[in-house]
Amino acid sequence: MTRFVAPGQRGERVFSPFLLLPFCHANRMPHITAEIISIGDEMITGARLDTNTQWLSQRLGELGVDVQFHTTVADTLSHNTDVFRIAARRADVVVATGGLGPTRDDLTREAIAESLGLPLQLHEPSLEFIRGMFKRRGREMPERNHCQAMFPLGSTPIHNPQGTAPGIDVRATREDGTQSRIFALPGVPAEMKTMFDESVAPAVLAANGQRQHIAHHIMKFFGIGESDMEAKLGDMIARDRQPRVGITVSAATISLRIVATGDTPDACQAAIANTREEILEKAGEYYFGDGETFEQHHAVIRHLNEVGQRLLLVELGRAAPLGDWFAAVSDEPGFTADVPAFVGGISLANLDDLRQWTGMPDDASAETCLTALRQRLSADWVLLVDEYPSLHQTNDHPLPGSDVTFLVAAPDGSFPSITQHLGAHPSILHARVAKAGLFWLRKCFVTASSGV
Amino acid sequence: MTRFVAPGQRGERVFSPFLLLPFCHANRMPHITAEIISIGDEMITGARLDTNTQWLSQRLGELGVDVQFHTTVADTLSHNTDVFRIAARRADVVVATGGLGPTRDDLTREAIAESLGLPLQLHEPSLEFIRGMFKRRGREMPERNHCQAMFPLGSTPIHNPQGTAPGIDVRATREDGTQSRIFALPGVPAEMKTMFDESVAPAVLAANGQRQHIAHHIMKFFGIGESDMEAKLGDMIARDRQPRVGITVSAATISLRIVATGDTPDACQAAIANTREEILEKAGEYYFGDGETFEQHHAVIRHLNEVGQRLLLVELGRAAPLGDWFAAVSDEPGFTADVPAFVGGISLANLDDLRQWTGMPDDASAETCLTALRQRLSADWVLLVDEYPSLHQTNDHPLPGSDVTFLVAAPDGSFPSITQHLGAHPSILHARVAKAGLFWLRKCFVTASSGV
Repeated sequence: MTRFVAPGQRGERVFSPFLLLPFCHANRMPHITAEIISIGDEMITGARLDTNTQWLSQRLGELGVDVQFHTTVADTLSHNTDVFRIAARRADVVVATGGLGPTRDDLTREAIAESLGLPLQLHEPSLEFIRGMFKRRGREMPERNHCQAMFPLGSTPIHNPQGTAPGIDVRATREDGTQSRIFALPGVPAEMKTMFDESVAPAVLAANGQRQHIAHHIMKFFGIGESDMEAKLGDMIARDRQPRVGITVSAATISLRIVATGDTPDACQAAIANTREEILEKAGEYYFGDGETFEQHHAVIRHLNEVGQRLLLVELGRAAPLGDWFAAVSDEPGFTADVPAFVGGISLANLDDLRQWTGMPDDASAETCLTALRQRLSADWVLLVDEYPSLHQTNDHPLPGSDVTFLVAAPDGSFPSITQHLGAHPSILHARVAKAGLFWLRKCFVTASSGV
Repeated sequence: MTRFVAPGQRGERVFSPFLLLPFCHANRMPHITAEIISIGDEMITGARLDTNTQWLSQRLGELGVDVQFHTTVADTLSHNTDVFRIAARRADVVVATGGLGPTRDDLTREAIAESLGLPLQLHEPSLEFIRGMFKRRGREMPERNHCQAMFPLGSTPIHNPQGTAPGIDVRATREDGTQSRIFALPGVPAEMKTMFDESVAPAVLAANGQRQHIAHHIMKFFGIGESDMEAKLGDMIARDRQPRVGITVSAATISLRIVATGDTPDACQAAIANTREEILEKAGEYYFGDGETFEQHHAVIRHLNEVGQRLLLVELGRAAPLGDWFAAVSDEPGFTADVPAFVGGISLANLDDLRQWTGMPDDASAETCLTALRQRLSADWVLLVDEYPSLHQTNDHPLPGSDVTFLVAAPDGSFPSITQHLGAHPSILHARVAKAGLFWLRKCFVTASSGV
């Protein structure tokens, strides 16, 4: 007999044949090892890049778990079964992503059941949850989604607040009596991440002795390369340092991730605060904020809200990412204002088109156009990007790029501008140009604030 | 006794204990299976995203090889040995990247030797090659690079024209007498890619009988969900179908990838053409183009270029992705025009702001604003998105979303519009709304072209 908890009551298991066995054998704690399994034809054929595994590796590392293997496998039942069998043998924790959808290709439920020698059973509360999800969307649940409520005997559903695929939390007992714990999550990154943070991470921490607390904090930087940042930080990025400082780069934005472990949450936070101060002393001039999703445009909107000023954007050339970024910020908690700081954005091919739009003569300067726009649209600041380069290579430079001018119309009537050669891999070039523009705008803010 | 060929004479093996055995057992040919192994702490910890494996998966697939497993492992000898042992057992071809450098962390040579039970032997020509490489850079070879000339007995060095690490080509004989062929390449992407193309791919094709050709083709669709598309395609997506049809979804756009194998390239292309027709019969109303990177905005620009008309975009609310997408299209070969079809984009908070921008009274309709803009900016078509929803959930719907109106100002003076409830995961909601807008615009194109 197996009873499942309702999907809402995650983590609370009513019955499991393995319940009385320890999570992993005692002499291995707290050194928990892990394997990450990624399931799907789109990964195995190279049609899609597997970013889930990278994310999970980072998160498990922060929890003190020693990730030792990643395995990717196609949507083939026998291969999936083999992969789960091997993983359960060699890793204490197995986190799998993908294969939980409602189609014939989704085989994770069967693969886990078969590899552990367990039958699949219907979990009524999960079925009700899935039905309810469709109902709220005004649809009947298709018959094929029924299989998403099937679970290997003895497993616990992992609540999925965002989709119809619940995860699976199940223990495998090895020949020597030790256990491996398998967490199967959907492949949709957002669902996977939420479920990992809400359900898997707490379970892993609890299994890891519960005294060990972990906290992390992310600081963001722009205007410095990775190697230069590493040189500035010196020993701070050593792997055995506590708290550990990890460096990652995404489209020219540097993130420093401080991970502290300690006996109490307060001890973790205190250690993070000290390390944060140390980092600011070394690289403060490039720092613009904290938090994984905090970008320079957040820093810009925050500043404008504080001083009660408004920004208009004009993007010329082969891209217009800033309009999209700033439109989205107004939706984020903490960045709203009675009078939104973002007036709006204009995307045009070139300066001639801007003259036509603003009704200026053919020889009008960019400054004249910006002044007209600023007055007409009640903006305090205007940032002009002139212009986003082509993504194609030129003979002069190994990477695509070009000279880009950032012209700012400031509230005091001045027009600070800078021209830089900006080149980068095509996949990040436009974002890099946009960020360099925001870096310049932020410098103009500082000059204006200090009255220089 | 083992003799190696000089690294320059790649592929020509003088002696191997396995030479007389076939590459893989006859009844499995030409169905060659493969496993890709990626070696390195930086991948296993998530510090670096593994793009080598994706690249190799795509290339091996094109060679007609059935990639079945990817494995990633840290720089730990025992784990590496296990991984090679498992791979040699289950895959005909094993392609490994990483671990061939000169440092203590580079363990691939030892791991392969140990997993196959072969001793490592110095290969003098490789040592000379490495010494020469340093000499040309004006340096003495450090002692630690000596290990890069050590090879498992019976293996063939794979020439590396760009670096000091030769690759390893070695055969493992299984218990049943069949063989697995292991190719170990460096982790540096440029070196890995050159060595794969120059040495590994020809070896794999030769082993595959050389008669088998492969071709693929991608078709794109919007306006239909994945499950509904699967239902429409029926048996066409069966895994044993020839040509095979694979389905993937990215932000509500569906890609169907047709992969055909045959005796000649023409046979492959003919099979693809037939399957493509069959798909169009079943789901043609949602089809908008061909090619991995072809999106609806490409279809829109292509149409506008054909009919010599121009488009202006007005995006209201919490996003403005279309301005960025369309600005970028003008940079792509095949989509340029003397008079660019994309006039420009405006991103604003709401309709009130649009009235202010266009100098219209507070009670002016959206249609009036669009007409004014169209005339002022010499556009034929205007698409208004009113408006991009908040990414936050509401009580009514499990996913964020809202009613969105797409209003089109058509050249004939009509204003076709549609209002839809659009909801999706926050990571794709704005893109989905933008794509739904383009779907509506394309319908308006069809109506205009047919004179309805």
